[in-house]
Amino acid sequence: MQTIRVETPSAKYDVVAGSGLVETLAPRIERAVGKLPRRVFVLTSAPIWALWGHNLQRSFQDEPTVLFLPPGEGHKTLASVEKILRQMAVAGGDRGSLLIAFGGGIVGDVGGFVASVFMRGIPYVQVPTTFLAQVDSSVGGKTGVNLPEGKNLVGAFHHPRAVFADIAVLGTLPDRELRSGLMESVKAGIVRDRTLVRFMEQHVNDVLSRDPKALEKVIASSIRMKAGVVNQDERENGLRMILNLGHTVGHALEQATGYKTLLHGEAVGWGMVAALFLAKQRGTISSHQCERLESLVHLYGPLPPLKLRVGKVAAATGGDKKNVGGVRRFVLPVGIGDAGVVEDVTPAELEAAVSYMLARAGEKTAGQQVSELAS
Amino acid sequence: MQTIRVETPSAKYDVVAGSGLVETLAPRIERAVGKLPRRVFVLTSAPIWALWGHNLQRSFQDEPTVLFLPPGEGHKTLASVEKILRQMAVAGGDRGSLLIAFGGGIVGDVGGFVASVFMRGIPYVQVPTTFLAQVDSSVGGKTGVNLPEGKNLVGAFHHPRAVFADIAVLGTLPDRELRSGLMESVKAGIVRDRTLVRFMEQHVNDVLSRDPKALEKVIASSIRMKAGVVNQDERENGLRMILNLGHTVGHALEQATGYKTLLHGEAVGWGMVAALFLAKQRGTISSHQCERLESLVHLYGPLPPLKLRVGKVAAATGGDKKNVGGVRRFVLPVGIGDAGVVEDVTPAELEAAVSYMLARAGEKTAGQQVSELAS
Repeated sequence: MQTIRVETPSAKYDVVAGSGLVETLAPRIERAVGKLPRRVFVLTSAPIWALWGHNLQRSFQDEPTVLFLPPGEGHKTLASVEKILRQMAVAGGDRGSLLIAFGGGIVGDVGGFVASVFMRGIPYVQVPTTFLAQVDSSVGGKTGVNLPEGKNLVGAFHHPRAVFADIAVLGTLPDRELRSGLMESVKAGIVRDRTLVRFMEQHVNDVLSRDPKALEKVIASSIRMKAGVVNQDERENGLRMILNLGHTVGHALEQATGYKTLLHGEAVGWGMVAALFLAKQRGTISSHQCERLESLVHLYGPLPPLKLRVGKVAAATGGDKKNVGGVRRFVLPVGIGDAGVVEDVTPAELEAAVSYMLARAGEKTAGQQVSELAS
Repeated sequence: MQTIRVETPSAKYDVVAGSGLVETLAPRIERAVGKLPRRVFVLTSAPIWALWGHNLQRSFQDEPTVLFLPPGEGHKTLASVEKILRQMAVAGGDRGSLLIAFGGGIVGDVGGFVASVFMRGIPYVQVPTTFLAQVDSSVGGKTGVNLPEGKNLVGAFHHPRAVFADIAVLGTLPDRELRSGLMESVKAGIVRDRTLVRFMEQHVNDVLSRDPKALEKVIASSIRMKAGVVNQDERENGLRMILNLGHTVGHALEQATGYKTLLHGEAVGWGMVAALFLAKQRGTISSHQCERLESLVHLYGPLPPLKLRVGKVAAATGGDKKNVGGVRRFVLPVGIGDAGVVEDVTPAELEAAVSYMLARAGEKTAGQQVSELAS
């Protein structure tokens, strides 16, 4: 078990990564936030609750009130938020109530946002159940939902009081989701932690076969990297931008495919391939480093093939939320274990990088289709 | 013109009260927040915009994007928030955009909440156009909307970058709204400022006839009182509670009348009458002080008559948002110019206070109906 401390100007809390956290949750929460309040809410999804709900309830003397969010990005909406808020009001929730977000990234994002606005803010705890949510979305205080106009356009910075990343829960995670989540760990290594890059290169089989020790190592390192960055730049004014390696093109791919065929990590994986190419062209990484890092991405793939036009993907990069005043920002790796942000990527450079990525994504089509990868 | 500084752990900004602020807004905002961003949004209501929109636009080189919120509490909803957020996304709003909330308390509450959640938070400026919004809701960072289950159950603490309370705009405010707003100034005096109590006793006619100097004095004193309290207790953990004098019963009256017949200040006015009675019974104010303060409430009335059952009002006090873990909190004046919070008001005490208030509110029916007071 490993404990990582998050310390920002507005919040201090622990992220615990290890096995067996879900069935010992109540005393762990009490250690983090003090006595449990009269009303504890659990926001979860029906599939997760069916698999792990019994384990979670075990350590609670008074049964928490369970609220369900239907699975899928399509429910990450203000309408879902309103429904949950109303259920909490009807159930007698007050300013002292606590919310536990028990599920993947969507449950975490929606749950955190609900907690941030219910009666102008109540405390909450993250218990992420996917690899992606454990290493990424449950740390850093970003919460929110989508609008028809774009992803995560509505939200708040609202830190949890504690995060419990239970590795045992990953046992029921579909393989494709695990691989997708691992892209964020690959990203963590590339931008900030060359030791993690080496570990992931050397332990591919251990990690993919879900060896608990290997998973704990990768998860804890990824969280430590993110916590370190968030500690220095809570509101994404500078350093925190580097967490978006692969995300400018990744978001464009998600948008261009209607958020249907690609998992987030898969889109980020392809986005990193584009960013690596761009970095090599600019000379912030060598050809050798580029090859090594792209190989790492593919080791934890396979990434789904893509059939998209360059122009469509390039145009979609314009709508990214990180763009203030119309500037297109790119995170580029600098060697292995460091990264920087550039704002002057020309349309020609962007198209070259996207072309390279799409060519690589086309090669992959031999014998593989996205549908076959779906679990 | 008077400038009051708000300084909390999370925000520092100025509240400016005076005449002629609306037509000189752009340079004033630039002085407060720096260069105006590419995209400036104005959230307002159609009636206010028809009266004052031209004045507001005058000082802007690039026309701001105007968004409308239909008038009335019925539009203070998450649905309205979503509609506005979508309009902002479509219009190309980004993280650097600025929102100006130009209207009464509802526009301010909704606008502040929209600003707090659009792309996880953008800066905003309050330009309140009602007396109530100028002295109360535009200062303190409370933003939010209603749920069908209760008022202000959803929201955020999000401070404006500046507040401009233009007294000239009050020239078009209906008389009933002015009187209602003045109840918050009466409250301000009772809980924190005996000088304001005396001024309001001695200048009833000046204030009600909207003499600019008298209005500026009352508004600035009220804001100064609130700012002083908010500076010490941003999140309403302790001292800020005293701002709720009259609000426990006031909210109950609003709820019992379906938020239809009473303006907020009128409900608070009657709530103060109940609180004054309770304080007299408990001995925190003398009979003489009680009489003097109740007279002040009525000087700035007339408060609408009420026809309600004691039990209904008493029961409705249970649903107040300030109640954590089922405790019913009451703010009671202590002498003139101070107040405290009690949590041990018995059902019998509550009923006695509500009975007294309803008896006073019944006497008032002679020759007066709520409908006649409506403007």
